[in-house]
Amino acid sequence: MPQNPQESRTSPAPQSLVISQVRLTPLLVADPPLLNTQGVHQPYTPRLIVEVVTADGVTGVGETYGDSKYLELARPLADKLVGHSVTDLNGLFTLADGITVHASRVESSVDVGGLRGVQTADKLRLSVISGFEVACLDAWGKAAGLPVHALLGGKVRDRVEYSAYLFYRWGRHPQGTGGEIDDWGAAVDPAGVVAQAERFAETFGFTSFKLKGGVFPPDQEIAAVRALAGRFPGRPLRLDPNGAWSVPTSLHVAEELRDVLEYLEDPTSGTSGMAEVAAKTPVPLATNMCVTTFGEIREAFVKDAVQVVLSDHHYWGGLRNTRELAAICRTFGVGLSMHSNTHLGISLAAMTQVAATVPNLDHACDSHYPWQTEDVITERLTFREGALDVSEAPGLGVELDREKLAVFHQRWLDDDGTLRDRDDASAMRVADPDWTTPRLPRW
Amino acid sequence: MPQNPQESRTSPAPQSLVISQVRLTPLLVADPPLLNTQGVHQPYTPRLIVEVVTADGVTGVGETYGDSKYLELARPLADKLVGHSVTDLNGLFTLADGITVHASRVESSVDVGGLRGVQTADKLRLSVISGFEVACLDAWGKAAGLPVHALLGGKVRDRVEYSAYLFYRWGRHPQGTGGEIDDWGAAVDPAGVVAQAERFAETFGFTSFKLKGGVFPPDQEIAAVRALAGRFPGRPLRLDPNGAWSVPTSLHVAEELRDVLEYLEDPTSGTSGMAEVAAKTPVPLATNMCVTTFGEIREAFVKDAVQVVLSDHHYWGGLRNTRELAAICRTFGVGLSMHSNTHLGISLAAMTQVAATVPNLDHACDSHYPWQTEDVITERLTFREGALDVSEAPGLGVELDREKLAVFHQRWLDDDGTLRDRDDASAMRVADPDWTTPRLPRW
Repeated sequence: MPQNPQESRTSPAPQSLVISQVRLTPLLVADPPLLNTQGVHQPYTPRLIVEVVTADGVTGVGETYGDSKYLELARPLADKLVGHSVTDLNGLFTLADGITVHASRVESSVDVGGLRGVQTADKLRLSVISGFEVACLDAWGKAAGLPVHALLGGKVRDRVEYSAYLFYRWGRHPQGTGGEIDDWGAAVDPAGVVAQAERFAETFGFTSFKLKGGVFPPDQEIAAVRALAGRFPGRPLRLDPNGAWSVPTSLHVAEELRDVLEYLEDPTSGTSGMAEVAAKTPVPLATNMCVTTFGEIREAFVKDAVQVVLSDHHYWGGLRNTRELAAICRTFGVGLSMHSNTHLGISLAAMTQVAATVPNLDHACDSHYPWQTEDVITERLTFREGALDVSEAPGLGVELDREKLAVFHQRWLDDDGTLRDRDDASAMRVADPDWTTPRLPRW
Repeated sequence: MPQNPQESRTSPAPQSLVISQVRLTPLLVADPPLLNTQGVHQPYTPRLIVEVVTADGVTGVGETYGDSKYLELARPLADKLVGHSVTDLNGLFTLADGITVHASRVESSVDVGGLRGVQTADKLRLSVISGFEVACLDAWGKAAGLPVHALLGGKVRDRVEYSAYLFYRWGRHPQGTGGEIDDWGAAVDPAGVVAQAERFAETFGFTSFKLKGGVFPPDQEIAAVRALAGRFPGRPLRLDPNGAWSVPTSLHVAEELRDVLEYLEDPTSGTSGMAEVAAKTPVPLATNMCVTTFGEIREAFVKDAVQVVLSDHHYWGGLRNTRELAAICRTFGVGLSMHSNTHLGISLAAMTQVAATVPNLDHACDSHYPWQTEDVITERLTFREGALDVSEAPGLGVELDREKLAVFHQRWLDDDGTLRDRDDASAMRVADPDWTTPRLPRW
């Protein structure tokens, strides 16, 4: 007879760890015009900052997606959380289970869900939970004088390696849309990609390179990766078209690049297609699209459809679920690395803390962070020699910059609603009025 | 490029959580003459009590197997642990990896390994680690004022259900072997089994029943389960012959008992045989023999050889690994419950704490505890209505009784070596000089 979970009747934790207040702050933060198969990043992207405050006045911070549908779920969860302990992390799932998600919200077409894999109510809940879980861990760590990694069982490495995340991009956002201007300039051909990679290598010391593909016809992207291989011989290279290719196109690209690819990421959409590609190429396939929930694992692993899972603590429901995913990958002989969407320093700190605890971190992690010119923490995290040191400070080791938080929140308040839900296709239509989200496979 | 784990160079934890001393106390504790397919329990069984003491003087306790080969591994691990933090639980695995296990120890025939599944050096290490991990969690919890379940993310239920663990047994150990005498009397037929079940139900309130089988020819054990079903209609029943049957015999028993079995446990040995049985019966198969390590999961799950895994935090390397196993079972749609060998109150407290945190605890847990007349804790745990309350006291919520610890340790010191390694076949030979460990399948 199943032993059903229940909301516990008593709070076991010391009173000092009980949550007295939860603050949610939606933001719009600058994002450069990075291109992907669905369109282009908006000038500003929504993020949500979660703060939990304990009875003792300790504040923990977390960060997750800020689109409206995440906010709608986060608000009732924030209300429910008051009175619970920051240690009651399993209870977060029980609390969130009780919150209804409207089907229209889950299936909303105004979403970059195509880039984030399957959309389900459960996954939406998990993405919201992740922000709260990280905030609770940060508060607990600060209260106990322990870094978050210690609350996850302790680090097994002192530094976490990251990979350079190269993008085709424009120099600035389309006229009339605003946005901040950075000094990276455009990159729309092999020479531009190589120049970008050189700057990444010089500035941050990255030694592996990932190119976001699916933007140009495959042979142009093959040429860009070949150019990278020529400039950085022997370095691990990755190409990620976000499922834009057919199975034959995927196999063509794999064959052309098999001698230089560390892995090919989501060449085609769906587990069946990935399995077909995997069966016919020696190039390992990675994914953050066809395996983004626990429910998708069984089929993909049994079919040997993917050789590397790119975990994302937002999708998967937090740092502890990320460790469970890692255990599953370890058990089934599937590789592990980390995926990244646009994120700020809080999430980068969280990724680094959990990555430090996972024995089977098989590849350098992805991070968009070098592209973000704005952040809500007082001291930006700095990549050295392609890696981040694992912070030993209590909690995540970051502090909120409340002035910046206020500025980015005001931007969100001032927005008329056009930017509050990330929509790369819509942003692309400013430059190309005929643009529609491409049907996959695109090539 | 893999991000290799390394022994961390710095201890992140507050100095107060650093381990200043580790004490290992091997014991011999009374065990009644319970029968299984390999023989009979010895009058005393070896257990090992692990104590870690922090710089602040907080002591945490753990318990694991006490056979010599576990002790040999535990001693160097205890030495290495001094100076590490009780929070550095992932580091336990790195530390233990560095300890060599002699092959002769792993494959030693003087062992009840046949009852504990595959024997490997890794599994031996994990069983030892589990005692240290529980001791560290207990110390950390006591220092932080948190129950162990909070350190595992918090309980999702307030009580954990257990099942009555019925055994064929003799009234007392064979003459000349000593041992304590309890008042349960013999149970060697259906009437004896039913009487035992009645007392279990009355005393502890258990509502599900498991019979350890593989002792008598299958039709006698079928008759015993039928008698239980007659006496307790509708109650979940289980039968566990420890792999003693052939595939056809397993299918015969499954067919005879399909209307009353909650599950059939390890009817036959090995994953292939289990898969063959599972394919031909609707009765779910449970195991604590063919899936006892992470390395055995993939084959068993892909073949659908088992429907329920009986976890054991000793085998699996501790409470956190048990949670990882639970996540894997959840992901693959495999049921979960808990296995038990002879153990004392420390391990029962640990089982209960972790069981409270696992959402997918699908069945009542096994425990030998009602059979143990001796314990090393000051207050025995008490089953009420077939369940244990989840302790909210800091740590495990148990305290060592040092006088009893000294008595049982003295018994171990006084032993001439015959009881220091559990050997059910050897114990059986006292009564039946011709007894040899049966070749499987026995029937």
